[in-house]
Amino acid sequence: MEKSLIHNIFKEVDLSEEKILLLANHLTKVNCKKGELLIKQGESVSNKYFIYSGCLRSFFIDEQGKEHTLQFAIKEWWISDYPGYFQGRKAIMNIECIQDSILIKLTKNGRDILFNNFPELETFFRLKFENTIASFQKRTIASLSYSAKEKYIQFVNTYAEIEQNVRNYHIASYLGITKESLSRIRKEIAKGDS
Amino acid sequence: MEKSLIHNIFKEVDLSEEKILLLANHLTKVNCKKGELLIKQGESVSNKYFIYSGCLRSFFIDEQGKEHTLQFAIKEWWISDYPGYFQGRKAIMNIECIQDSILIKLTKNGRDILFNNFPELETFFRLKFENTIASFQKRTIASLSYSAKEKYIQFVNTYAEIEQNVRNYHIASYLGITKESLSRIRKEIAKGDS
Repeated sequence: MEKSLIHNIFKEVDLSEEKILLLANHLTKVNCKKGELLIKQGESVSNKYFIYSGCLRSFFIDEQGKEHTLQFAIKEWWISDYPGYFQGRKAIMNIECIQDSILIKLTKNGRDILFNNFPELETFFRLKFENTIASFQKRTIASLSYSAKEKYIQFVNTYAEIEQNVRNYHIASYLGITKESLSRIRKEIAKGDS
Repeated sequence: MEKSLIHNIFKEVDLSEEKILLLANHLTKVNCKKGELLIKQGESVSNKYFIYSGCLRSFFIDEQGKEHTLQFAIKEWWISDYPGYFQGRKAIMNIECIQDSILIKLTKNGRDILFNNFPELETFFRLKFENTIASFQKRTIASLSYSAKEKYIQFVNTYAEIEQNVRNYHIASYLGITKESLSRIRKEIAKGDS
């Protein structure tokens, strides 16, 4: 894998040539086509993915067959089914490329080897996890106290780059509203209603 | 602080006498009375807490003055407002002792010193964070797909020890239902309705 790509992923880490080589041995570049499923609900999970370009979506299908979008992941984010990746359980969600994407794959086994040989990487991921946990708490509070319109505005601010490229039913399912409500909210915002 | 207490908190870590001393210097035992607030919405956050005994609750108050219970934390859990603790923001929630509790406090500063001197501790917290992230994903899916009754059953399974000691309005607010619905669900379960 290109050295520049490794610097891009681990930009917060001071990387020696030796460390770059070690990382290159345990990371794999993956091209993923729009519509492709990387992780499937009920199956084993071996990988987490860094998004170099493109966009992914995680969703789960409930017992009634209804789809719920949990998260979108854009450039420079990591994504996986974490009960699967961290705890060896079966995936509780699906992860799908919603645009043609270039991803960097890190297997569980590769990760263990890296952690054993490269303590700075443990710090790197510990800091990422702290931000993830803080974001989860913020999102939980937002989901309880924001109106659908406020949630949509937060979505646009977080995912500014992808809003135009994501299907309306994905956005509506992420916000927990109908497509009709999404359309009404957009019209209100376009008209400048507060 | 007692050596046995440190072994209890860090039971997954191989501790030398020197490491125990270092930990003892950066952890503080705190007695917290029922009703006491440890973290207040809008204020700075300096500490995270390990629950040695007792029970804590995190909640936030929305713009309409309505209280939402986010989490209960019981024996051997860690709790804090993480946007505050990890990212230096103002607290987005309150954390309250709902029983007289014995807590072990870890300051941000103490934590930084420990991480710098004690790499095994970084692994210890990295693993805790992985479990936290996996739990958040599971809880998000449960909140989208479970009925109120299923959520209550999951609550009872998770918090078996405290269910009898927590006020009904805390449980109802955690489940996002009214006290009347909670009462109805309990009656259905007592009658053995499926």
